[in-house]
Amino acid sequence: MKKIINSPEDVVSEMMAGLVYAYSDLIEQVPDFDIIRRKTAKTGKVGLVSGGGSGHEPAHAGFVGDGMLSAAVCGAVFTSPTPDQVYEAIKEADEGAGVLLVIKNYSGDIMNFEMAREMAEMDDIQVEQIVVADDIAVENSLYTQGRRGVAGTVLVHKILGAAARQGKSLAEIKALADEIVEHIKTIGVALSAATVPEVGKPGFVLADDEIEYGVGIHSEPGYRREKMKSSKALAEELVQKLKTEFDFKAGDKYGLLINGMGATPLMEQFIFTQDVAQLLAVEKLDVVYKKVGNYMTSIDMSGLSLTLIKIDNEKWLEYLNEPVSTISWG
Amino acid sequence: MKKIINSPEDVVSEMMAGLVYAYSDLIEQVPDFDIIRRKTAKTGKVGLVSGGGSGHEPAHAGFVGDGMLSAAVCGAVFTSPTPDQVYEAIKEADEGAGVLLVIKNYSGDIMNFEMAREMAEMDDIQVEQIVVADDIAVENSLYTQGRRGVAGTVLVHKILGAAARQGKSLAEIKALADEIVEHIKTIGVALSAATVPEVGKPGFVLADDEIEYGVGIHSEPGYRREKMKSSKALAEELVQKLKTEFDFKAGDKYGLLINGMGATPLMEQFIFTQDVAQLLAVEKLDVVYKKVGNYMTSIDMSGLSLTLIKIDNEKWLEYLNEPVSTISWG
Repeated sequence: MKKIINSPEDVVSEMMAGLVYAYSDLIEQVPDFDIIRRKTAKTGKVGLVSGGGSGHEPAHAGFVGDGMLSAAVCGAVFTSPTPDQVYEAIKEADEGAGVLLVIKNYSGDIMNFEMAREMAEMDDIQVEQIVVADDIAVENSLYTQGRRGVAGTVLVHKILGAAARQGKSLAEIKALADEIVEHIKTIGVALSAATVPEVGKPGFVLADDEIEYGVGIHSEPGYRREKMKSSKALAEELVQKLKTEFDFKAGDKYGLLINGMGATPLMEQFIFTQDVAQLLAVEKLDVVYKKVGNYMTSIDMSGLSLTLIKIDNEKWLEYLNEPVSTISWG
Repeated sequence: MKKIINSPEDVVSEMMAGLVYAYSDLIEQVPDFDIIRRKTAKTGKVGLVSGGGSGHEPAHAGFVGDGMLSAAVCGAVFTSPTPDQVYEAIKEADEGAGVLLVIKNYSGDIMNFEMAREMAEMDDIQVEQIVVADDIAVENSLYTQGRRGVAGTVLVHKILGAAARQGKSLAEIKALADEIVEHIKTIGVALSAATVPEVGKPGFVLADDEIEYGVGIHSEPGYRREKMKSSKALAEELVQKLKTEFDFKAGDKYGLLINGMGATPLMEQFIFTQDVAQLLAVEKLDVVYKKVGNYMTSIDMSGLSLTLIKIDNEKWLEYLNEPVSTISWG
């Protein structure tokens, strides 16, 4: 393992310190907690809390700011944050109108976020939650019942964050969340696995000419391992999977998120984007929103994921397009 | 070589197509040229053109937009753009007030940008140029007389772009450029080299426990190879090099850019940021501007660079802080 770190057990605290140092205009750390909160004044609107294990940077702290998350909880690497951390984040995010929790579908996250929710409700804070399970690769996985929550989660942050800023109620935002998560689906491919600092070796090893489709963001197994393919062939495989799930119809409106896993250069992400664009054009989809870059990474994993959101409501597109002030979403 | 590409000879054209597809609200390609131009209306102000070999994404196309570059020329991977491409970019960028070329110090770039400049001057376009040579690692290198131009170039884009938007004249911007480049210095460290698609193997190979200080962004040799160190020790080495160059004095104002080389996760970049922050605090520097992320990469190289700009004029800080509309600088 060759990483620019000090002690593996200190990576989260040191990373948070660096983040807060670099972006003290936008965010701050909640004293004594592994929580990043935004520095904007409280305005009595619904708060949004997300988070999970660290190692997915810029998720989730990079999305804290006006128009997205109120606070992000940073667990140990690939490990759910504890209930007391999430509870504290809920208290930080509450401005009197309640808090919505955005949880990626991992059993540990759900358990701990729900415990925190119960603690907050005993304080009379209204709390709702949405579980994101956008990864269509496999059903059930190492840490998940059902489908895993991956890069599509960032679109949930964006849409709900914009709705919260517009002053929607907790009930309205919960209803919106329930609706959009059904319209967001993701599928990925890995060229190499992530190395967790405390483990010191990759989660699995692929040969120099091998890839694996559908790997999770914690190196959970995917659905097929095979010889390396061209970008075009990878795009065909992933678009085909999404086509089956969505039932593409000509003229339907979609948003597109291509997400690098941490070690994949932008050059490759843009080449893949071009191949995806051509396939979506063949399907005659109307792609009205596009974003390419590293948003929900898996430490130093090489690979990428393709997310589509079916835009069934113009309001969702408006929410996606609203400007935000965060570190990592522009 | 395991890369998400199609044919190695098509990587630049396909990457540009993906970029233009994803960000058609901000940029467009000049038909028949490997040039990205901004879509803003022409306002009669000074134009800024930069570029160079591809493989440094998001540089330089990611910095095209209102308040930064007018146009970026995308050469083949790690290869200078041809004079006719740069000439075309100058014509695109000229709004009647002349054009300034921002050139990284590589012999091929200087030759070709200067030939383009001569061609443009025959069309009566006023052209000035600035050569950025911020890498303090070594004197002279594989492709460079003097010092190489690296990540500090992005700060030049930002400052000059803001000045151009404010309506400064070409002479004023040239004078500003001459002044700031003396105040920007960079030094880096590599954990692995880049693999150029058409070459198919890394520019050099480091052992699993080895690093090299001062490697260039085209895998040019650095100044010392040794065993892997902690982030803190790497920060000490790089800060010490900059301290010697700048002659740090307590209370002096600096801006900080920590730049990932392409395959280095944000987690590591932020840990390194924290270590640098502590060392700069010991020096009692006043760090008034900070930026961390992948800005001037070297394809899939693992490593990072540290850039400091000594802020001798409050106006430079104002230019750095002005909002911009680009793909990759927020």
